Amino acid sequence: MTQTKVDETTLGLLKGIVGEAGYLDRPDDMAPYCASWRDDWVGQVPLVLRPANTQQVAAIVETCAAAGVAIVPQGGNTGLTGASQPHDTGNEVVVSLNRMTTIRALDADDATITVDAGVVLHDVQRAASEAGFLFPLSLGAEGSCRIGGNLSTNAGGVQVLRYGNARALTLGLEVVLPDGRIWDGLRVLAKDNTGYDLKQMFIGGEGTLGIITGAVLRLHPRPTARETAFAAVSDPRAGLAVLRLLREQMGDALSACELMRRAIIDFLLEHVPGHSDPLADPLAQPHPWYMLIEVSGQGAPDHLRAGLEDALARAMEQGLITDAVMATSQGQAARFWKMREDLAEAQKRAGVGIKHDVSVPVSQVPTFLAQADAALDAAYPGIRHCSFGHLGDGNIHYNPVAPPNWDGARFKAETTAINRIVHDIVAKLNGSISAEHGIGRLRLSENEHYKSAVELDMMRSIKRALDPANIMNPGKTIRV
Amino acid sequence: MTQTKVDETTLGLLKGIVGEAGYLDRPDDMAPYCASWRDDWVGQVPLVLRPANTQQVAAIVETCAAAGVAIVPQGGNTGLTGASQPHDTGNEVVVSLNRMTTIRALDADDATITVDAGVVLHDVQRAASEAGFLFPLSLGAEGSCRIGGNLSTNAGGVQVLRYGNARALTLGLEVVLPDGRIWDGLRVLAKDNTGYDLKQMFIGGEGTLGIITGAVLRLHPRPTARETAFAAVSDPRAGLAVLRLLREQMGDALSACELMRRAIIDFLLEHVPGHSDPLADPLAQPHPWYMLIEVSGQGAPDHLRAGLEDALARAMEQGLITDAVMATSQGQAARFWKMREDLAEAQKRAGVGIKHDVSVPVSQVPTFLAQADAALDAAYPGIRHCSFGHLGDGNIHYNPVAPPNWDGARFKAETTAINRIVHDIVAKLNGSISAEHGIGRLRLSENEHYKSAVELDMMRSIKRALDPANIMNPGKTIRV
Repeated sequence: MTQTKVDETTLGLLKGIVGEAGYLDRPDDMAPYCASWRDDWVGQVPLVLRPANTQQVAAIVETCAAAGVAIVPQGGNTGLTGASQPHDTGNEVVVSLNRMTTIRALDADDATITVDAGVVLHDVQRAASEAGFLFPLSLGAEGSCRIGGNLSTNAGGVQVLRYGNARALTLGLEVVLPDGRIWDGLRVLAKDNTGYDLKQMFIGGEGTLGIITGAVLRLHPRPTARETAFAAVSDPRAGLAVLRLLREQMGDALSACELMRRAIIDFLLEHVPGHSDPLADPLAQPHPWYMLIEVSGQGAPDHLRAGLEDALARAMEQGLITDAVMATSQGQAARFWKMREDLAEAQKRAGVGIKHDVSVPVSQVPTFLAQADAALDAAYPGIRHCSFGHLGDGNIHYNPVAPPNWDGARFKAETTAINRIVHDIVAKLNGSISAEHGIGRLRLSENEHYKSAVELDMMRSIKRALDPANIMNPGKTIRV
Repeated sequence: MTQTKVDETTLGLLKGIVGEAGYLDRPDDMAPYCASWRDDWVGQVPLVLRPANTQQVAAIVETCAAAGVAIVPQGGNTGLTGASQPHDTGNEVVVSLNRMTTIRALDADDATITVDAGVVLHDVQRAASEAGFLFPLSLGAEGSCRIGGNLSTNAGGVQVLRYGNARALTLGLEVVLPDGRIWDGLRVLAKDNTGYDLKQMFIGGEGTLGIITGAVLRLHPRPTARETAFAAVSDPRAGLAVLRLLREQMGDALSACELMRRAIIDFLLEHVPGHSDPLADPLAQPHPWYMLIEVSGQGAPDHLRAGLEDALARAMEQGLITDAVMATSQGQAARFWKMREDLAEAQKRAGVGIKHDVSVPVSQVPTFLAQADAALDAAYPGIRHCSFGHLGDGNIHYNPVAPPNWDGARFKAETTAINRIVHDIVAKLNGSISAEHGIGRLRLSENEHYKSAVELDMMRSIKRALDPANIMNPGKTIRV
């Protein structure tokens, strides 16, 4: 452990702001705040602060700004890129929002909910649901991630196709700025053109421009009708045509359109108990690709069924879908979704994978998959492709698994080389090397490699303008 | 006319960049570029540049930056706040994008269209429609406003309720920065978390941070079903309850929910030929408030009819709606919409009005109307209230008309006082003094009065960071 670089006077002042209940300074207590849940990132700090309210956050930041102490804002600490964990220098403090869990307001006429940044995503969903609404942001970590972190990473998930990402669900923010001032941007307005839309810089800003302490979020009516289908297609290009047909026929009702390669389904059936192939046919070869399709909306519970049946029938007539089944019960629909949710687990159990969280224009998904597969096949014969993802968003979890005869460490050592192969193709197709997870530290150098000098300069300008002393989550997102 | 302050050498360089076809320097030719269409804003410049492409825009800006010449970017010059017209100092040049009218690409699988910033909004709509899509941005000036201006003002219109404003329809931008560099942010991605979402600063930035030269816009499937209703309600609070009921029953299909006071309908029937009251009843008093309701979506042409009928019937049972009629033909629906479109004209013909483009939280619309009406009644007995607007967005065109016995000039002289009364109430309700039209010069001082010092500072920081020399549309949006 290197020695702490935060002076005792400052530590004392910070402790005084939050009181006994609001800080941790024993290494054991601080450890969970200093490492990511997968232990990809482990750092250390002399102090973890857990302020009770926005005023305490402001006082903390003001004190840190005066002393030149860097701050690592943290929500549920579930991020995957090292954005919310401290460095190992010991000269930062963690400011966790996990005691700020008040749902401040829910207004049914406005269809909005106003929350502290530390509210767990699932609790936002539940409060919305209890009031007859849907808060559509939904992702694997929803039981422990916190809304401030979701906003700071502009979280996505499976319902982006219909409802947009975290950005699209945010009407207003309250932010403590790097000098300790509080910006009250908690607007409940669908239309406000009174200047630059400042909240947009903090959404997806990974805590590098300020600490989000509160938010006004949009709610949607809770769907009363939902249909789910599992379909087989011959290749991603057919999947793309199905997506287009579904959009034309079902419009905004299309709420999920997921694509899965046969190999990941095989991994699932082999490694994760409790699953079966909904389209298994002992007399035929398994299908090479699958789709999980969901439509949802208001109105009579079954009113979307005929439309989806018709769309699937048309897709079969056109030779796009080779087989399909529509869920006839909520239980069956839940089983389809459980398959999708367990794919990450299936991939993990199948062997060491190299993860890529990429997006390309939807039209380029087939090209991306073909080119990336071919390039990796050439470089790593026997490499196993098991991609899956959100076709409707052009967002593919492209996580190739080691050839069967390789040990994990040997494959892991190829991470940088494989990233470069995959990301070069993504860049050529005008895609994104981080569709959902952000930059943090994981993709920092990679982002500097691919982003234009102009864009990096603009990011640095924004960072310097709002955090001139570079105390807010330094060394994440953009280096200045 | 004051003498030009742009030196001849610079003027020569600028003319050289665009060639003969690309500039205007005779006062008569320049006049239409120097005034707004209502002549609220009249300025002067020594040169109007009409570049043919992004490279020319970049060269112009680089030259201006080197010489310290300020630039007024201009689209269709239809803005209402003085943002796109030059000052009368003569030391600026206008850069009009009106020769950059190429539709660069339309991709059906991506459901996107990529356009030059100078494409007229209606031409974007038409190109989308010809490809089977809807580009939902729609407003009065759509035949002459240009998409770059729409994005720079984050334009709204009647379909924001369903499709969002211009910001929500934008996936990527190409921008010439204040130093002349081109930022290629023409992404076609639904998900991209590789840093600050820089395009958001230019959307609604009113040309003060750079010149938008191109954009990637989202397309939606063209609705195949549409139902329109005209309904009477006793007051705005009942209207609000109807809105909530419609949201619950119809979900995202609800594409318009407009509220109109009886007085504006009276003005319409009196002053604009060709209209009739769809709910006229010779045996009853006219209704005090009306709503125009539209639902739309994909699927069979009439499949939304039963749902809307049911929702309206429920609203009547609950005493929220006192009478209603559903359009039984496209012609009748068009007549309902023509009424809504002609309200601004009706108000104009009824007498001198003081305009306010305000929004409040949807839940506060009834309170706002009651308080603003009462405050103005007290200050100006006999003042005529004829408010109408987008109830679903909390956006009211609150344009009171002079008392019948006042002459126009006397009422106009009260503009500042009336603005203050109305905007004080808006501010108290956490609303916006410019919901759709922006700040420009019209609301500059008013915005400085109402916005917090913190927020004004943040805006100045962003402006200084991206345009340190303050040459990009100076004196608009935010003073530095």
